[in-house]
Amino acid sequence: MGMAGRTNTILQTGFFALSGVLPREQAIEKIKSAIEKTYGKKGPEVVEKNFRAVDETLSHLYQVKVPDKATSQILHSPVVAAEAPDFVQNVTALMMDGRGDQLPVSKLPCDGTYPTGTTKWEKRDIAQVIPEWDPQACIQCGNCGFVCPHSVIRAKFYHQSHLKGAPEGFRSAPISARGFPEIQYTLQIYPEDCTGCELCYEVCPVSSPNDDKVKAINMRPKDNLLAQEKKSLNFFEKLPLNDRARVDFSAVRGVQFLEPLFEFSGACSGCGETPYVRLLSQLFGDRAIIANATGCSSIYGGNLPTTPWTKNSDGRGPAWSNSLFEDNAEFGLGFRLTADQHLALARRLLTELCDELPGVPVNEILNAEQLTESQIRQQRERVAKLKVALLSLSGERASSLLSVVDHLVRRSIWIVGGDGWAYDIGSGGLDHVLASGRDVNVLVLDTEVYSNTGGQSSKATPLGAVAKFAAAGKPIGKKDLALQAISYGNVYVARIAMGANPQQSLLAFREAEAYRGPSLILAYSNCIAHGIPMNKGLTQQELAVKSGYWPLIRYNPALRRADKNPFVLDSARPRISFREYAENELRYRMLQQTHPEQFETLQAMAQQIVNQKWKVYEEMASQSGAQFHPDAFGLD
Amino acid sequence: MGMAGRTNTILQTGFFALSGVLPREQAIEKIKSAIEKTYGKKGPEVVEKNFRAVDETLSHLYQVKVPDKATSQILHSPVVAAEAPDFVQNVTALMMDGRGDQLPVSKLPCDGTYPTGTTKWEKRDIAQVIPEWDPQACIQCGNCGFVCPHSVIRAKFYHQSHLKGAPEGFRSAPISARGFPEIQYTLQIYPEDCTGCELCYEVCPVSSPNDDKVKAINMRPKDNLLAQEKKSLNFFEKLPLNDRARVDFSAVRGVQFLEPLFEFSGACSGCGETPYVRLLSQLFGDRAIIANATGCSSIYGGNLPTTPWTKNSDGRGPAWSNSLFEDNAEFGLGFRLTADQHLALARRLLTELCDELPGVPVNEILNAEQLTESQIRQQRERVAKLKVALLSLSGERASSLLSVVDHLVRRSIWIVGGDGWAYDIGSGGLDHVLASGRDVNVLVLDTEVYSNTGGQSSKATPLGAVAKFAAAGKPIGKKDLALQAISYGNVYVARIAMGANPQQSLLAFREAEAYRGPSLILAYSNCIAHGIPMNKGLTQQELAVKSGYWPLIRYNPALRRADKNPFVLDSARPRISFREYAENELRYRMLQQTHPEQFETLQAMAQQIVNQKWKVYEEMASQSGAQFHPDAFGLD
Repeated sequence: MGMAGRTNTILQTGFFALSGVLPREQAIEKIKSAIEKTYGKKGPEVVEKNFRAVDETLSHLYQVKVPDKATSQILHSPVVAAEAPDFVQNVTALMMDGRGDQLPVSKLPCDGTYPTGTTKWEKRDIAQVIPEWDPQACIQCGNCGFVCPHSVIRAKFYHQSHLKGAPEGFRSAPISARGFPEIQYTLQIYPEDCTGCELCYEVCPVSSPNDDKVKAINMRPKDNLLAQEKKSLNFFEKLPLNDRARVDFSAVRGVQFLEPLFEFSGACSGCGETPYVRLLSQLFGDRAIIANATGCSSIYGGNLPTTPWTKNSDGRGPAWSNSLFEDNAEFGLGFRLTADQHLALARRLLTELCDELPGVPVNEILNAEQLTESQIRQQRERVAKLKVALLSLSGERASSLLSVVDHLVRRSIWIVGGDGWAYDIGSGGLDHVLASGRDVNVLVLDTEVYSNTGGQSSKATPLGAVAKFAAAGKPIGKKDLALQAISYGNVYVARIAMGANPQQSLLAFREAEAYRGPSLILAYSNCIAHGIPMNKGLTQQELAVKSGYWPLIRYNPALRRADKNPFVLDSARPRISFREYAENELRYRMLQQTHPEQFETLQAMAQQIVNQKWKVYEEMASQSGAQFHPDAFGLD
Repeated sequence: MGMAGRTNTILQTGFFALSGVLPREQAIEKIKSAIEKTYGKKGPEVVEKNFRAVDETLSHLYQVKVPDKATSQILHSPVVAAEAPDFVQNVTALMMDGRGDQLPVSKLPCDGTYPTGTTKWEKRDIAQVIPEWDPQACIQCGNCGFVCPHSVIRAKFYHQSHLKGAPEGFRSAPISARGFPEIQYTLQIYPEDCTGCELCYEVCPVSSPNDDKVKAINMRPKDNLLAQEKKSLNFFEKLPLNDRARVDFSAVRGVQFLEPLFEFSGACSGCGETPYVRLLSQLFGDRAIIANATGCSSIYGGNLPTTPWTKNSDGRGPAWSNSLFEDNAEFGLGFRLTADQHLALARRLLTELCDELPGVPVNEILNAEQLTESQIRQQRERVAKLKVALLSLSGERASSLLSVVDHLVRRSIWIVGGDGWAYDIGSGGLDHVLASGRDVNVLVLDTEVYSNTGGQSSKATPLGAVAKFAAAGKPIGKKDLALQAISYGNVYVARIAMGANPQQSLLAFREAEAYRGPSLILAYSNCIAHGIPMNKGLTQQELAVKSGYWPLIRYNPALRRADKNPFVLDSARPRISFREYAENELRYRMLQQTHPEQFETLQAMAQQIVNQKWKVYEEMASQSGAQFHPDAFGLD
């Protein structure tokens, strides 16, 4: 009926047609008038679709005979695979199976920590279509994996000798980089974890010369692919992970080889938030501590019984916790202060023990810059040496140092949440933490509305959009959190949209993390609340930027040291109108039905805001000198 | 000893010299080493002064013989005057007399409302010097009354015939305005309410040709003046109040004739906050509802047993309440929403009753603009007619309308507090209320530190200032709340400093109140926490502006309707260095003693911030077009 995922009209019609609660004709009449009332403001097509759903339901009703005895030989498959660890077998699986009430309290971790990396055992298997990779057509750009909300597209390169023992049908291609003739490349789908959102297909830059609908990755019915892909996946997982030292972090193409430490979450199919979260986990996950505000990201991030945050083969992964809506920035600042204390203790003990540690590069450890991945890696190697040396020492100081020695590798503190947290309920705390000058990284997944609680207006909601508490379109412009943060002068600020410029998103994440002060990333996150087909999420991101509504910016106070303007505008002048972006989204468009005059007024005002704001940004970007005030973070 | 107001060293020395707790010499040695430790960072002069205080105490000790019997004829004067109202006599006076524990609960208002205007009965009588007015020298500019923190300088003009019956020595002069030969002018001091802060003297623009220390208002020992001034005051209070219709509100000269509805508070002598609060009460007090954040202003604003907020002869005055630190903006928004509901009810009932109210200018009432004082006055007269007409009507609608009829005169909603509230603890709520687009007026009394709780650093504390939690000088710049609010585009924002430009302060208050959307006034408020002689508070305000540290600005979105730049810079380019302003204040200067290198570094950084910020402001002021986005407040 063209109403994918919506069953209420159909089920309701079936119920009233059969139950006899009302005379059938009268019931159908009432249903239709309810449809008009409920969906009228979404436009006549929606009403028409629902009417047809009613009629088709009635004409397809038939009786199902229930046999006296079940004769099927198909049994329930086990809830989790046999390889799953004990906790998953004995605790997680019971909850998944709806038998959580049978668990004794003693089975649950008594200190509140909870095993990570358990979504991988869930295999929700909800997609009807999944991507199929075409090794011959693929240019190995990495875009598909970069935008995948559920981390179900992975890539590895490996020596061709590893292909020995590959199952029949396992896909592989020579790596596209020149000068490595013996190296092969594989892009692997996780068929039972994919949600079928199609973003990978949408973002693939390759088109067949014969049919521009055919790309290097294409959506195909899962039933035909599942058996093969499960076998392939099994083999793929055994291929060695690529060494982070051999991967170019600065390019989207390189990021595909970094292991995601956030995977298979319960977020909506096509979620606009999770690709940013996954990217964070790929880049910094093995030394990240994450404070997560209440909101969608706290739900899909810690959705009992399973946890999408996971760890690498060394056992390293993000430590993650969720605090309240109103104090998440402060919560994350606490992580920072704690890490700083641990580091200070480690440095003191290391200095004191210096003479007892011959062969350990103590000075290098104490003075390591640790801004880039390679510097971090070198530090980790030095600290590994230190650990070995410490194990051979006795005494309280050596064992104390051992207990905090990992803090000598720079911790990456992240404060993550949505706009309801950052713009509204937690804004006072966020402001305070940004003003603290401390080295924290804030990621705002900006859906411009309270997504998780059902679409209430926030201060991030743009003028003209319809939301709960803004039924006639929000009459006030979106709060410019970027400008507010920039006014501090020592806060790194970026506004990004992966669908418009994935390379800029990547750059912003890396700069924000390297910056030794507070950083704020505002990430455009398309959402089901926008009223778009979710496979067009990235296209909408691109249009938001093209229209000038969401200018891509980076404000990097560190640039001031080189007497450069810290404000960089990364997107081009508006090339389309605001309306060309907005009219694809029901949150704007529905006003055309309900308040047509208000719609026109607000669209005109929204365009004016875009024009004026663009002017402000362009002026800021065109200044030559430094602005506001010098870096203060060195004085702390 | 040059340590006005500080007695701890003297009393401590006396105690240890007499008590014999320790041998006298040993005790004195300990006291002196404690002085070095405690005051060393404030500089050698302070230590030296305290040392001398110890020595002089010892050399002035003498025994007082206590007679067996009291022979004095002087009795305790009554706690409050006999004219005081019942509540003051029976409740307030007992508390003032330290006998509050004898009050039965039944004497206290059971609904939480509390009588206002009771400080006038307190007569704290704490000044040793008070101002004496010289009618011949005075140019009647009104500056002295404008800056008076305790509302103890009042002015009236009146027909000369009123002088009949004046007590001997009552001072009067012909009014300085031309064309009113029969009109006399009097500036009256409230001698027992004055705290002797000297600000009136400091701000007086007149100097004697013979001695530039002698002005038109001069500080004199109170003992010589008290009896005369009490008689004069008694007569002055009976002179008729000047009609607000005959006063020019737009000039400081005119404001002196407006009755303060905030008087004789318990704020510090020379307080930098209270002159702004008094001005608010003079301009809008008869229709104001005030939400007051926790802080100094909540203490002196509602300091049991007396209340400085008062009412005029019509019984009209501010309704005032204090909420928590963290929710004051929201609290005030509630007042706005409530007033809006009452107004909506009144308008509906008035429209419905229209035909039953012949002679009442119903349309004028419904369509009154009410932006200026004269428009308000006209509306009040129309509403008075309406009230009379309503009294002759029967029925529920008429009595309902009568109960809310005063709301047809525009309410003036004020949200008042310090920087600890606005920049820190209440900042999330403030941001939310500013973003609401609602017609509220926010007054931030910016002392740049938590004053009431003892001088802790806030986000308003400037770089380089010493405060609790910033003992080595704050290393991070002051949060630019003005720029943050301006980024909304539809918020009226002013930054004012009465000591630098009283006329601009006055203008900002009037524009903010008239603006039909959210308004924010940031008022520079000198404070004892700054470490200045408080009689120099206004001079420091002027230097802050002259140095460019505190640029005077007004951002009025209403200007955009006339295609004007809403951003107006009211102060001139910096003419002195930041240091010339800062070095007069101990909060900056003490760093010179404790961390001399840090002092130099921070002073240089602070100067750089001033330069850069000035550039930003100058650029904003020089733009010709409108900025950010159009007024949205009309759409609500």
